[in-house]
Amino acid sequence: MAHINANYLNIKESYLFSEVANRANKYKAENPGADVIRLGIGDVTRPLCPAVIEALHSAVNDMSETETFKGYGPEQGYGFLKESLRAYYAEKGVELDIDEIFVSDGAKSDLGNILDIFSKDNVVLVPDPVYPVYVDTNIMDGRKIVYLSANESNNFLPLPDENIKADLIYICSPNNPTGACYNREQLTQWVAYARKNNSVILYDAAYECFVSDDSLPRSIYEIEGAKECAIEFCSFSKTAGFTGTRCGYTVVPFALERDGHKLNKFWLRRQTTKFNGVSYIVQKAAAAVFTEEGKKQIYENINYYKENAKTITDTLDRLGIWYCGGKHSPYIWFRCPDNMGSWEFFDALLSKANVVGTPGEGFGENGKGYFRLTSFSTHENTKEAMKRFEKAFGNNG
Amino acid sequence: MAHINANYLNIKESYLFSEVANRANKYKAENPGADVIRLGIGDVTRPLCPAVIEALHSAVNDMSETETFKGYGPEQGYGFLKESLRAYYAEKGVELDIDEIFVSDGAKSDLGNILDIFSKDNVVLVPDPVYPVYVDTNIMDGRKIVYLSANESNNFLPLPDENIKADLIYICSPNNPTGACYNREQLTQWVAYARKNNSVILYDAAYECFVSDDSLPRSIYEIEGAKECAIEFCSFSKTAGFTGTRCGYTVVPFALERDGHKLNKFWLRRQTTKFNGVSYIVQKAAAAVFTEEGKKQIYENINYYKENAKTITDTLDRLGIWYCGGKHSPYIWFRCPDNMGSWEFFDALLSKANVVGTPGEGFGENGKGYFRLTSFSTHENTKEAMKRFEKAFGNNG
Repeated sequence: MAHINANYLNIKESYLFSEVANRANKYKAENPGADVIRLGIGDVTRPLCPAVIEALHSAVNDMSETETFKGYGPEQGYGFLKESLRAYYAEKGVELDIDEIFVSDGAKSDLGNILDIFSKDNVVLVPDPVYPVYVDTNIMDGRKIVYLSANESNNFLPLPDENIKADLIYICSPNNPTGACYNREQLTQWVAYARKNNSVILYDAAYECFVSDDSLPRSIYEIEGAKECAIEFCSFSKTAGFTGTRCGYTVVPFALERDGHKLNKFWLRRQTTKFNGVSYIVQKAAAAVFTEEGKKQIYENINYYKENAKTITDTLDRLGIWYCGGKHSPYIWFRCPDNMGSWEFFDALLSKANVVGTPGEGFGENGKGYFRLTSFSTHENTKEAMKRFEKAFGNNG
Repeated sequence: MAHINANYLNIKESYLFSEVANRANKYKAENPGADVIRLGIGDVTRPLCPAVIEALHSAVNDMSETETFKGYGPEQGYGFLKESLRAYYAEKGVELDIDEIFVSDGAKSDLGNILDIFSKDNVVLVPDPVYPVYVDTNIMDGRKIVYLSANESNNFLPLPDENIKADLIYICSPNNPTGACYNREQLTQWVAYARKNNSVILYDAAYECFVSDDSLPRSIYEIEGAKECAIEFCSFSKTAGFTGTRCGYTVVPFALERDGHKLNKFWLRRQTTKFNGVSYIVQKAAAAVFTEEGKKQIYENINYYKENAKTITDTLDRLGIWYCGGKHSPYIWFRCPDNMGSWEFFDALLSKANVVGTPGEGFGENGKGYFRLTSFSTHENTKEAMKRFEKAFGNNG
């Protein structure tokens, strides 16, 4: 008699995005003339840049001729892309060996799959509010989860608490959903805590390309000692608009050992056994991101989104609304005006301004009373949305 | 203190393909003039067909314009591809709902990841010889594995043994590495056994497109009752030469329940939590395989490989060497001449005929004394290799 993994029964169904869609659709049905603007989505909207498109066409041509056709590639990624990634890290002052880098189909896959190499008995620390995948993937394995409070008093950047012991620690910086970004001193505290407790930090750097200030770290490995206690996950999704093209990468340093074993070797074993590498075509496209042209072009897109973020934060500044994010992140996280609840404000924003956002409580208890807007829309729509926002809530700011 | 998943320490390192490469390279170094032909690889060599190339270029163009750009897609695959797959199954007489089909980056990923939804206490049945991934992925989870003997007396197609109880049953047909293919009556016995014991069959159909005889099943669901006891894995890798392009699919029927829960819902939850879908570009390419042109073109490639298989089996027939596979599979599995051991024959074939193949014992105990050749080389090289084979071992046939 085959049995299911009963841990799955403990996962809470998330109704966040379906409920957002339901309420937005209901409003549209009742107000067919309304011009509803969506600032809730966490997905890019700008097309792939020309350097990437050119690389894609060229790689497709490679696949059309016997001489240049590519079959199975290395599970951990082609050397040409790993070399580009090594150079990218070197620009941040981080020296990596090419075999410390693993190319994958995205950070979400790796963030889930990395748990394969850890004991089910590990205790997991996640901040609240949080990207729901960190929680659900651990519930699937039956791990104990402890939460760390992110809130206004710590600017949604909680620091280690010596009274809370944890084996695996999730850090996402710049953060989803709050947009908050740790500085060097704060990350140094986390690295010290992890080293002292022999914990492993699972560092989600998916939004590192939005960091606007050179003094802020874009990789955990910019912190001394991090190679002995951290795995870093990153992605081309937000960097280069690859959400529908699918490519990410994970760094497992050789120096990271637990129970006397190199985690790099464990992850290599996991990936060679349960994964067969990323499409050659997609890897060629990812490598094009790091050419001179590619870099210039992707930063045009990133700056486009950053201008939208500024449109949003300028409005919140004018209204005197507390927020974080926006400067080093495509996300802006703010306190709902008039002490409204997240969903209450969702309805108010929709009915008064015809703008759809994301209620903060969908990301955890500490998100109650907060709200997330994203900068992934067009300039025109973002400006119009914030004009309406200001008109609707200006008196209450 | 973070701890590793100690089950990983129980995985046996496989030296099969590295040892094959080492011996071949050593021979090349010692005999620089030798024209060594490789018939060991399990990878396609023919380029992607024109219909697929055209779809790839078109999809790349979609990604270059705001209006047609695609961000995150459904984790379980785009409707356009799932509709094509549903129609493909309908041609085999299998009716599926579109939401019973999940698109992925390949059968290897899904075969590994599917285990997430099953209890670690399930006992697993695998045939010997076997695709090593079935074994290693279960060792990683600490499951008990029992083996079923595939051998000459059962034509490497073992049938259920009521004395062996198992919860999860791996069946690969046409088989890797033996090329043997179950008929309808044999699969009916497996379905009956699984239903009686409430087991779940994990059916690897990656080579179904090589089945040449309409009376042989190309899907487990051609067998009555299979939807209540089987999950099917398939791939575009061998069907359309996607080994380096990466696309596969898995079918989890709604009728399949264990412990009172639909496994379809569990797999959907797994994939939406730990996966973010396959590249839009690749899914468009996969859908092109099912156009009239695409089907015609991929079968030209499949038939090209089948001609190579015939070149190999004709030689073995002439030499009176026992074999299976080749007719409905790109693999030919044969008894080593002169009662040689697998590695002994590897060395003899390399030195006498300058041909590289794969020793059967790399796939399990029952592979000892057997050998695998593949049909993925060119006509020219396959003919030359078998001419040399016949010359070297003809007197011993």
